[in-house]
Amino acid sequence: MNRRISRPLAGFVLILAALASGAPPAAAGPGGTPRRPEGVVNLLPVPETVAVREGRFRVGTDLAIGGSGSPSGRAFKAAARFMSRLSGRTGLFLKQDFLAAQKPAGQGGVRYSYAREGLLLPTEDESYKLTVEPGGIALDAVSDIGVLRGLETLLQLLSADEKGYYFPCVAISDKPRFAWRGLMIDVGRHFQPVEVIKRNLDGMAAVKMNVLHLHLSEDQGFRIESKVFPKLHELGSDGMYFSQAQIKEIIAYAGDRGIRVMPEFDLPGHSTSWFAAYPEYASAPGPYEIERHFGVFAPTFDPTNEKIYPFFDAFFKEMAALFPDPYLHIGGDEVEGHQWDANPAILAFKKKNGLADNAALQAYFNRRLLKILTKHRKRMVGWDEIFQPGLPTDIVIQSWRGPKALVEAAQKGFQGILSNGYYIDLCQPAAFHYLNDPVPADSPLNDFQKSFILGGEATMWAELVTPETIDSRIWPRTAAIAERFWSPASVRNVDDMYRRLGIVSLALEELGLLHLKNADMILRRLAGPRIKPLKVLAEAVEPLEGYARHGQAAYTSLSPFTRFVDACAPESLPAWRFGKAVDRYLASRDPVTAEELRAILTAWKDNHAAVLALIAGSPALAEIEPLSLGLSRVCEAGLGALGHLVKGEGQPAAWIEEQRKVLAEAAKPAAHAELVVVQAMGRLVDACAGTGR
Amino acid sequence: MNRRISRPLAGFVLILAALASGAPPAAAGPGGTPRRPEGVVNLLPVPETVAVREGRFRVGTDLAIGGSGSPSGRAFKAAARFMSRLSGRTGLFLKQDFLAAQKPAGQGGVRYSYAREGLLLPTEDESYKLTVEPGGIALDAVSDIGVLRGLETLLQLLSADEKGYYFPCVAISDKPRFAWRGLMIDVGRHFQPVEVIKRNLDGMAAVKMNVLHLHLSEDQGFRIESKVFPKLHELGSDGMYFSQAQIKEIIAYAGDRGIRVMPEFDLPGHSTSWFAAYPEYASAPGPYEIERHFGVFAPTFDPTNEKIYPFFDAFFKEMAALFPDPYLHIGGDEVEGHQWDANPAILAFKKKNGLADNAALQAYFNRRLLKILTKHRKRMVGWDEIFQPGLPTDIVIQSWRGPKALVEAAQKGFQGILSNGYYIDLCQPAAFHYLNDPVPADSPLNDFQKSFILGGEATMWAELVTPETIDSRIWPRTAAIAERFWSPASVRNVDDMYRRLGIVSLALEELGLLHLKNADMILRRLAGPRIKPLKVLAEAVEPLEGYARHGQAAYTSLSPFTRFVDACAPESLPAWRFGKAVDRYLASRDPVTAEELRAILTAWKDNHAAVLALIAGSPALAEIEPLSLGLSRVCEAGLGALGHLVKGEGQPAAWIEEQRKVLAEAAKPAAHAELVVVQAMGRLVDACAGTGR
Repeated sequence: MNRRISRPLAGFVLILAALASGAPPAAAGPGGTPRRPEGVVNLLPVPETVAVREGRFRVGTDLAIGGSGSPSGRAFKAAARFMSRLSGRTGLFLKQDFLAAQKPAGQGGVRYSYAREGLLLPTEDESYKLTVEPGGIALDAVSDIGVLRGLETLLQLLSADEKGYYFPCVAISDKPRFAWRGLMIDVGRHFQPVEVIKRNLDGMAAVKMNVLHLHLSEDQGFRIESKVFPKLHELGSDGMYFSQAQIKEIIAYAGDRGIRVMPEFDLPGHSTSWFAAYPEYASAPGPYEIERHFGVFAPTFDPTNEKIYPFFDAFFKEMAALFPDPYLHIGGDEVEGHQWDANPAILAFKKKNGLADNAALQAYFNRRLLKILTKHRKRMVGWDEIFQPGLPTDIVIQSWRGPKALVEAAQKGFQGILSNGYYIDLCQPAAFHYLNDPVPADSPLNDFQKSFILGGEATMWAELVTPETIDSRIWPRTAAIAERFWSPASVRNVDDMYRRLGIVSLALEELGLLHLKNADMILRRLAGPRIKPLKVLAEAVEPLEGYARHGQAAYTSLSPFTRFVDACAPESLPAWRFGKAVDRYLASRDPVTAEELRAILTAWKDNHAAVLALIAGSPALAEIEPLSLGLSRVCEAGLGALGHLVKGEGQPAAWIEEQRKVLAEAAKPAAHAELVVVQAMGRLVDACAGTGR
Repeated sequence: MNRRISRPLAGFVLILAALASGAPPAAAGPGGTPRRPEGVVNLLPVPETVAVREGRFRVGTDLAIGGSGSPSGRAFKAAARFMSRLSGRTGLFLKQDFLAAQKPAGQGGVRYSYAREGLLLPTEDESYKLTVEPGGIALDAVSDIGVLRGLETLLQLLSADEKGYYFPCVAISDKPRFAWRGLMIDVGRHFQPVEVIKRNLDGMAAVKMNVLHLHLSEDQGFRIESKVFPKLHELGSDGMYFSQAQIKEIIAYAGDRGIRVMPEFDLPGHSTSWFAAYPEYASAPGPYEIERHFGVFAPTFDPTNEKIYPFFDAFFKEMAALFPDPYLHIGGDEVEGHQWDANPAILAFKKKNGLADNAALQAYFNRRLLKILTKHRKRMVGWDEIFQPGLPTDIVIQSWRGPKALVEAAQKGFQGILSNGYYIDLCQPAAFHYLNDPVPADSPLNDFQKSFILGGEATMWAELVTPETIDSRIWPRTAAIAERFWSPASVRNVDDMYRRLGIVSLALEELGLLHLKNADMILRRLAGPRIKPLKVLAEAVEPLEGYARHGQAAYTSLSPFTRFVDACAPESLPAWRFGKAVDRYLASRDPVTAEELRAILTAWKDNHAAVLALIAGSPALAEIEPLSLGLSRVCEAGLGALGHLVKGEGQPAAWIEEQRKVLAEAAKPAAHAELVVVQAMGRLVDACAGTGR
């Protein structure tokens, strides 16, 4: 499956190996002069092939851009955005009058071309070839969507030297490894208004993702206007839903960025909010209220009620017309079963129809839904649970349970997309998601079967996020997932991914994403204008991983997500860098690294007094005292260990034991978060074992 | 006009005088115990009367809120937002299930009541009475809009002590001084999408403003969908316009916050974008293109072309139906005249109809428009220039030229609103706007005439702002203007206004306003993650005031507004505080203040090396070197002066002269900005004159 074919041209310096291995960015030119093709080493996702050659294309105020297609076309609009972003980054007054009157770029500008307008389908060609030469830039693609992908690459290439801004000369040939590179946003549990969706679409486009999957209905909310059944959004949403005009706006915005929008209506479970309007369709008598808590709840559609099928027919007819995407997701996960088991009529129906268990009953329901979807020209997508006997192979399985289910489906001829391992709501490290491959190297599938794995989706489940915090839960980690879906399978250097993640994170800000700046805002609301001590503490703290945070409080869809933990990044890059520095020191005993560690440890340790002063003025901060005290103590332990290591003094087991106790105490969760520098500190402490060296 | 009648009740401690004078917040209770009714001294705008009494209402997770009205009503929705914001600030898991099933609050919660639903009219009653007692909070108003205003006051009262969060016990009786408290946003020169408008509506509501004036058409853009004349937005907007669905969304959002939305279509000048679609309506032959530059341009409607009147009739019929507000603004400013003077048919028309000059021709045009507006039940509003003989007194004059025009209009029986002095795009100090009064103490008007002054509007003209920067140009300074419009005329303590402005600025962040956080983003885009030196420099720098920045570059609607100057606040509060500290020191020669000054001066001086390092990596920053060097030099001068002053050493005139030269050099504009600490530094230097003391 390794499609990365490198074609070094004469005079080109191939830096692919460096990209994959995370080697330093400097490459030696023919004359031995060190060059710094900065933009090239920052590319994310890494293109299929990149060849660097001598020379720089200078960005000046006379830069022109032009290409094929009409001014109302996708490529033209993307070119306009490209120029605006380039102007924003360089501060240069670029000529952008082409917006009103498009003129072909002469020699010396950016020239793009494509053969045809791309279709928003997983089968579309998104490849492009980008050549930067000192005298001009050429971007050629089969479809205009390929042009979009290439423009993002070009923007990432922007570099600077003492003479100003430039693009390094390169020849890039690029195409995606997977056709389905998605982000699911759950707008059911916490609604996310249009502007949140739009800025995240911009973020997706920046890292070449191409599917926005909107999880539109949940126990906690029905989030789209239905003109056919208006009670659905009127009674099921607390007034927080997308109007159809807004949905059209989102679809157009996504389409301009080469992104499909696939709707999901989670059925037959996860459906309490529907029953606020239509209790008669549930499997137990109502009334029902919108669910405020989180979990798996009993309310479930009654598959034996014949009235639901004309209802779904009319409903999906409306939605099929609204969403142009050929795929429609019917959820299907976590049917809780209590209502079905407690309803004598349903039990009788199962018996009569030879449906052995609830899974069989759900398969029956799905077959009925499939008929309706097919009638309205939609292909059915669903979570693992819909993969049941009796459904044709043209449905698509989205696996949240694991890659095994996907393998099994592919072997039986079903297409699949992977989401297991991409649950970004769980606040796991980017490296974990990054190394999770829809088609891992040890996959038991043959090449034909592998072609059934369309790609994957990061899933932003929304129990614990609000419009204020959602960006920081999605970005920058999702960029690592985007690279997994786009780049060759061999691009797996974790350290280099983290280096580039920091760079792409800053670049994402220009799109309006709030993942960096909202942390400050949340802290200012808690503590007033002086938040430095809280920011220092946040470097060493992350929200509890997995489902652990859910256990810390009875969260509801109305809880405040405005506490210290909500200002902490799911993964602290400073903490990650600290861990790397510890390992580097332990491997090298390099005195410079020792000094670097000492500076960090001292700053963290001394931070506690300042945090205490802030806590005194803000009752909402009281909960973080254990974290701050813990950080101070583990840094004391770390500084002690470092001192011994520098002097080459070994320490007895009792000393190690004592430090370990301090670390264990500090590792306990507090304020729904945890100190994440404890493990690295443990490595420092452990290294003191035995006699000195 | 001083309506501030204080009615101290038995057992109440009146703190009004303290509020107006900026006295320290602590007040002594009956027992002599110092109390800190923090929230009370932070109120902005200052209410008409505030009486503080003993006691605190504790905010706990059991806090309930309830009142009259239906769950779809404005007050109910405002109560829901209040609870959400209160929960956000305190981190408390407040019970918010009332959203789904409203229950009246029992004793011990927040109880609100109103007599009727308010109308969105300048005549509406917005008064409220708010009583906080240890056992409960009562908020009573005539209209539900009064409830909204009172909820904002209550939220500002939130305070904290060692036991947690509380509302201090108070009795507040409040009503606005002026009925028309507006913010105009020019979406013509730079389009501002829906989310920008929404978050600014939230900001307006937080400081009790009640009119959003949308400047919807300009030479640079026609920003609203017309279904009757779709070419207008299709050809006049580069695709950047509000759809009618979005306009309805904005009107509903504003209405929920007790804010009117008044549209403006600037006619007959400032209209190039109309002519991109309808060149035949201009006074000179086309074709026309959307204007990219800024200024006053020739293209003007031809008032002698009879075809424009049915066009405007159909157009205003459509717009009158879309905007429920009874007022419609027809602009009318800056008719440039060249096209009229160069068109023989127009000259002949003037002669034939006895129209002596272009003002008379414009008055003729306005009379024709007035008929159309009246037919569609709208009252005409326009800029000064529409105030011409022959128009009836039911039009409203918005004065951009000066208070004199408004006085003259009022004397002749015309209603007026003041915008002169509230041009927030000019980056003038908040104090300047704050002391500018629609009805100043020395107004020549009698009380009856004064009643014709409805209020005023801050005007956000948009030559130099984008969605990234507009919030920082509006906030927090507009909050000072909001206080001028709402609070009694006697509330004029500038120092206390600045103190409260810093507090309200943080509170505005929770509404999604980006005025604080986007500065960091802009700096990170320029310089990468380490922006501290740029933030330090920005403390001492402001964009050039007035129209000076316009002269620094050939700005267009497509220029980058992403430079250092765009990250600088229009008014630096740190620089303001520095100036105050200098004055405090010069008055007192207090050694503590001297130390404070020395610390600031040293930090600023030493910042230059760090700035140089950043400049080396970012060509876009090269332009700020003179500013940074200048800051370093003036701080050197300041430190020198401070040293002499502390030692009591006088300095000869030659020394003063030399320092003055340094200051004069540093005062020169650079990077479209200027150092704003030079004047204060000059005061330090000048104080060294003569012999020591």
